[in-house]
Amino acid sequence: MTAYHIIAKKRDGLILTVDEIDYIIHGYAQNKIPDYQMSALLMAIYLNGMTFEETAALTCAMLESGFRMNFKNVPGQKIDKHSTGGVGDKVSLILAPLVAAAGLKVPMLSGRALSHSGGTLDKLESIPGFRTNLSVDEFYQQIEQIGVSMIGQTERICPADKKMYALRDATATIESIPLITGSILSKKLAEGIDGLVLDVKTGSGAFMRRLEDARALAESLVKTAMLNSLPTRALITRMDEPLGYAAGNWVEVKEAIDCLHGNGPDDLMQVTLALSAQMLLMGNITKTEAEARDKLNQLIHSGAALQKFYEIVRTQGGNLFYLDHPEKYAASKIEQPVFAPQTGTISSINALDIGLAVVQLGGGRFVMEDQIDYKAGIVLAHKVGDYVKKGEKLATLFTDHERVVEEVSEHILTAFQFQKTVVAKKSLVIDIIEA
Amino acid sequence: MTAYHIIAKKRDGLILTVDEIDYIIHGYAQNKIPDYQMSALLMAIYLNGMTFEETAALTCAMLESGFRMNFKNVPGQKIDKHSTGGVGDKVSLILAPLVAAAGLKVPMLSGRALSHSGGTLDKLESIPGFRTNLSVDEFYQQIEQIGVSMIGQTERICPADKKMYALRDATATIESIPLITGSILSKKLAEGIDGLVLDVKTGSGAFMRRLEDARALAESLVKTAMLNSLPTRALITRMDEPLGYAAGNWVEVKEAIDCLHGNGPDDLMQVTLALSAQMLLMGNITKTEAEARDKLNQLIHSGAALQKFYEIVRTQGGNLFYLDHPEKYAASKIEQPVFAPQTGTISSINALDIGLAVVQLGGGRFVMEDQIDYKAGIVLAHKVGDYVKKGEKLATLFTDHERVVEEVSEHILTAFQFQKTVVAKKSLVIDIIEA
Repeated sequence: MTAYHIIAKKRDGLILTVDEIDYIIHGYAQNKIPDYQMSALLMAIYLNGMTFEETAALTCAMLESGFRMNFKNVPGQKIDKHSTGGVGDKVSLILAPLVAAAGLKVPMLSGRALSHSGGTLDKLESIPGFRTNLSVDEFYQQIEQIGVSMIGQTERICPADKKMYALRDATATIESIPLITGSILSKKLAEGIDGLVLDVKTGSGAFMRRLEDARALAESLVKTAMLNSLPTRALITRMDEPLGYAAGNWVEVKEAIDCLHGNGPDDLMQVTLALSAQMLLMGNITKTEAEARDKLNQLIHSGAALQKFYEIVRTQGGNLFYLDHPEKYAASKIEQPVFAPQTGTISSINALDIGLAVVQLGGGRFVMEDQIDYKAGIVLAHKVGDYVKKGEKLATLFTDHERVVEEVSEHILTAFQFQKTVVAKKSLVIDIIEA
Repeated sequence: MTAYHIIAKKRDGLILTVDEIDYIIHGYAQNKIPDYQMSALLMAIYLNGMTFEETAALTCAMLESGFRMNFKNVPGQKIDKHSTGGVGDKVSLILAPLVAAAGLKVPMLSGRALSHSGGTLDKLESIPGFRTNLSVDEFYQQIEQIGVSMIGQTERICPADKKMYALRDATATIESIPLITGSILSKKLAEGIDGLVLDVKTGSGAFMRRLEDARALAESLVKTAMLNSLPTRALITRMDEPLGYAAGNWVEVKEAIDCLHGNGPDDLMQVTLALSAQMLLMGNITKTEAEARDKLNQLIHSGAALQKFYEIVRTQGGNLFYLDHPEKYAASKIEQPVFAPQTGTISSINALDIGLAVVQLGGGRFVMEDQIDYKAGIVLAHKVGDYVKKGEKLATLFTDHERVVEEVSEHILTAFQFQKTVVAKKSLVIDIIEA
């Protein structure tokens, strides 16, 4: 078996065997196969695709390139959620404590912000002192103690994925459904979980803008996970306007706390409760979705979910003071309101534009090396469907970068579309994909 | 402009601009673009193709990566021939002195043997003392003096091609018509010639086995050459059985000398004369093909072509003694005859099998680092269409490798097919492709 013949086979549109996929992925992870052969294969996969069986073998080989967690000794169902990323997506901050309060174990490995998309790790780290780089032992211990922990990728998990992702990023082979599937699922399988709920977003602020692409990715993820014996469901959800009102790091933490206080915006809670309910069903906490929703609402209104969030923050070293006294958190040098240029009903707020504006304000990353200003961001005053009068406030920008404010303010305005008539509200959950 | 965007464009099946192609080829030649980006682009080109205009820009950029010869001060038409390679293809050894004797200038840069395909340089080097590594100045001088010189690629010519070919060889992207076209033509354009005749072979021993692929390559070569202002014609010729009787290095030189003595085999002379006649027409030496053929036959029968061959060998340092006394050339340790296993008419002799057998006997290379035994090879006793009796000699193997003789003898027999009825002779020239 040689890398050459495996490349030639995929080039010719043939199906690779499990052994061939193992050979190439393990060889690449061990630096035995050079980048230039891997990138030729990645392009051939991009253009000729992979069957679900090939994708499952790819995922498994990537998983086996590193360490796999084992929660066999921890009682209870270990269930995680993963989102393909969007703007204002602080669902994990609400969902993780909520479903842990319901009795699930939640070993959540999250990612960082890149381009217009936010990252759960950065949001958590906006809480002073919060550590996302726990050791595996600390992670295990915390899951046992409080049922939930939220940390970053460790170097030991899926090293093949890290190497492949960097190569894909340089060779225009990111947007391939089998490669995306392998990257997402290998890391989730490494968590040693019993079930997975996926939030596959579609719309202007999503990685998969078109619904048909989101659906294809969701199907690939669910089928590939099942072939690797991980029960998985995917919700396809809208990401046309930002989720909730806040986009940025600290502003999103504050909004998540509002949600845990029972004061969450409709759209954000709709997605959070739909995903959380699926997790309770997968973990056999409740029998029906209605029961699950009742339980979740009760855990919010009793304060149990908020308490669990405080427990996470305390256990991971975060300063609780700012959760209770957000007004004491460092303020941005500039708080710039943006006003409606016309009277009408907001028909759309382009999430991509808002996400990119947050990065310009200092709240995100264009490249992985960029430093984040946690307090920078945008808080919307209105959402799609709201009727506003000309001159009314649409949003507030928070930033320390005086020189970008004017440009970003203008750019933000182009993200808003208005119409004369009423805008029909759309359900955020478009579909549920099951095996 | 970035390599990433150029890769993404070709990945999406779009047409690259001249500037984009220049950027990527020059960047790669200057080590500014890494192998892993180039190999992703090569795979995208392999799978999505290139227009003739893109291929012409690719060829031009590859040409411009290095030195271009200039024969403006040398009177006469500079015309070369290039073959896509085959088994027993010693045409260049006959054609170069022949058309030079007719008055053309022939600055011929040739290649080496690889896999089943022979190489003109290795054949010439089987003549003791023959130098194929002349300096450019020596090359110019020889063209002026005797009208013809046969040397190898210099490091200064098309360095981009050398780097790209090595990468293609490792990433399963050799068999791409635009990439083959760029590789062949960039080197021919670097010769500074006025016209080019191509021998695009098709059949079992050819790179392009199927006629439709050979035709597509011939059309790409002719159109791309014309877009780079090089008048070019391509002959599509059969490479089903070896050309002539000899396959190996020294045995082919001997057969070429026989041809120059006027004793060449029909098939070999048919291809040689067809290509040579096109060269004379391109160089305005004669007005019609019939005139050209008359002139060529006359140059052979007068001994002028043979004299020109001796001049080449003498000028390039080769020992003329062995040309007149081939019986004094070192003999192989083993001369193994192979006998007909049945009575019948030979219906085919698989050229690929014969070519690979020559390599096994020591007369070729599986990889570029292999040493060649010049005297090793195969001389057929019969060709397709011949009627043989069981036990009659079919071929003789020449080798120093005792351990392979038995295996190769058996393998050779499977290359021969027999039938009861007469085999119709086919013309070797299938078509001529002009712009």
